[in-house]
Amino acid sequence: MKIEEIEAQDLNPQRFIEEKITEISSIAGNGLAVNALSGGVDSSAVTILGHRALGERLKTYFIDHGLMREDEPQRIVPLFKELGVPVELVDSRAEFFNALKGMTDPEEKREAITQAFYKDVFSRLVKESGAGYLLQGTNYTDIEETVAGVKRQHNILEQLGIDTQKQYGYKLIEPLIQLRKPAVREIAKTLELPEEIYNRPPFPGPALAARIIGEVTQERVETVRKATQIVEQALSDTGAFQYLAILHEDKVTGVRDGKRDYGLQIEVRCWDSEDAKTGSPTRVGYDILEKLAERITTEVPGVVSVTYNVTKKPPSTIEAV
Amino acid sequence: MKIEEIEAQDLNPQRFIEEKITEISSIAGNGLAVNALSGGVDSSAVTILGHRALGERLKTYFIDHGLMREDEPQRIVPLFKELGVPVELVDSRAEFFNALKGMTDPEEKREAITQAFYKDVFSRLVKESGAGYLLQGTNYTDIEETVAGVKRQHNILEQLGIDTQKQYGYKLIEPLIQLRKPAVREIAKTLELPEEIYNRPPFPGPALAARIIGEVTQERVETVRKATQIVEQALSDTGAFQYLAILHEDKVTGVRDGKRDYGLQIEVRCWDSEDAKTGSPTRVGYDILEKLAERITTEVPGVVSVTYNVTKKPPSTIEAV
Repeated sequence: MKIEEIEAQDLNPQRFIEEKITEISSIAGNGLAVNALSGGVDSSAVTILGHRALGERLKTYFIDHGLMREDEPQRIVPLFKELGVPVELVDSRAEFFNALKGMTDPEEKREAITQAFYKDVFSRLVKESGAGYLLQGTNYTDIEETVAGVKRQHNILEQLGIDTQKQYGYKLIEPLIQLRKPAVREIAKTLELPEEIYNRPPFPGPALAARIIGEVTQERVETVRKATQIVEQALSDTGAFQYLAILHEDKVTGVRDGKRDYGLQIEVRCWDSEDAKTGSPTRVGYDILEKLAERITTEVPGVVSVTYNVTKKPPSTIEAV
Repeated sequence: MKIEEIEAQDLNPQRFIEEKITEISSIAGNGLAVNALSGGVDSSAVTILGHRALGERLKTYFIDHGLMREDEPQRIVPLFKELGVPVELVDSRAEFFNALKGMTDPEEKREAITQAFYKDVFSRLVKESGAGYLLQGTNYTDIEETVAGVKRQHNILEQLGIDTQKQYGYKLIEPLIQLRKPAVREIAKTLELPEEIYNRPPFPGPALAARIIGEVTQERVETVRKATQIVEQALSDTGAFQYLAILHEDKVTGVRDGKRDYGLQIEVRCWDSEDAKTGSPTRVGYDILEKLAERITTEVPGVVSVTYNVTKKPPSTIEAV
């Protein structure tokens, strides 16, 4: 089935929400559904849509795969509790780090995360809860990039010919699949999610694993997590579409206290973009960039060098992995 | 022997030149000497000093180790011929690529280049010419960094306890060893070298091998050479102290014509510095940086991403390797 995009300017958010609530109800019938909330705008919007449609028949999980930003579970779970949506925190860190062990190829890493999500964690949660449906926030850009062969987005299954019912034991419901990011933000705002959610910078499906060149280990996630926190603090005022820190595998020579210090390099990217389809490096002032480099090389152990990406997309992509 | 720095403001160039000419003559006596000209300001100044001191008893070689910038031998050899200094071009490319084969550690690569220079190539040239002396342009920053253990500069031997007479069969004469870059430029200018020489941006001893993370192969040198040429064209108007392109070993995901293109990344560095001891990233305008990234990703095969380094030295160093 060909999916038609609904562009932001053609969107009537209130009507779209009503239609999707009706659609989710009619697909799920009296069945149970589950969904995974990451705190990003897509999964947050789906969580609210699903709860309006199914009430207590939707069970929402927050899957902590260990690849999250600093303190994510502690921020997101209470925020939804306050909105009246109970969220169950699932600690899946061991499963994910196990699945990623020894892998360095970007597409292999993405595939390992997909499998850990859908085959391992979700299959178990669905089985335990007796649900027949998985609700998720797949958007139009995700399917476009995966089908075109640019990057395997972790949430793309049916468009690649994967029968989730047969392979994983549940059916997918994807209410946002016709929308790109700006339209999803409209929906999230209309659903009365707080601004910190509906204006949240995008975060990749494979999370911090998408920000690590080479093997994903707990130690390396810790390094990129610290750098990410500093980058998000330093660049949130830019109004940029997205900003991120990437841990390289290459080491470079540095110097500390007059002695050689062969260490790590962090690459910073900050994007002006409408929809992630194309993008330009944000023209961040050098005062901010130098201060950022100083903080990262001081506060993140082992890092001696920080670069800023100055390439457009294309030929770059938003993330490095 | 402790070497005392002569700072640029305390330098009397004309007197310094006269003293060094006398010194070189008295050390070499009636003996023969050789030197290697790379076209950088240090070796160029030494070439002229040596010829004024020894005339035809100094034989100058241009050693093409295959790690040069685009067209270097074709530019430098004729330039010195016009100044009345005959230069013999020595093709040592095979020797150097052989010495570097399979090496990825920065200090190992630097050591391999040092050995290829002094033990292989120079020893042979000295033997063939019957010379007893090697004149070279070691400067104060070189010895400082090597002795402090920051980076092994290829031309540092005696300060590390290496007896060149015993090990390689020749004695070293190093007339510029008390000077840093700005003072060397003064000397080069006073020696009536053309401005393109006395104002030349510094270039590392290991040449383009210092700009390659990972193994140094002919193909990878070709990639960084093309990027270097573009960077030098794009940034020469900045008035910066030094500007360079680094080829990374890490690959990143890119996109071309809507398809995935997993490719190379070039890191650009451009330094404001007085003497290479400390440095800050030059505040190059984004118009220039974006154009530079576009040229590199278009003109250098395989490159999909370009970064700009925003770290100060320290904790960065000028070069990456």
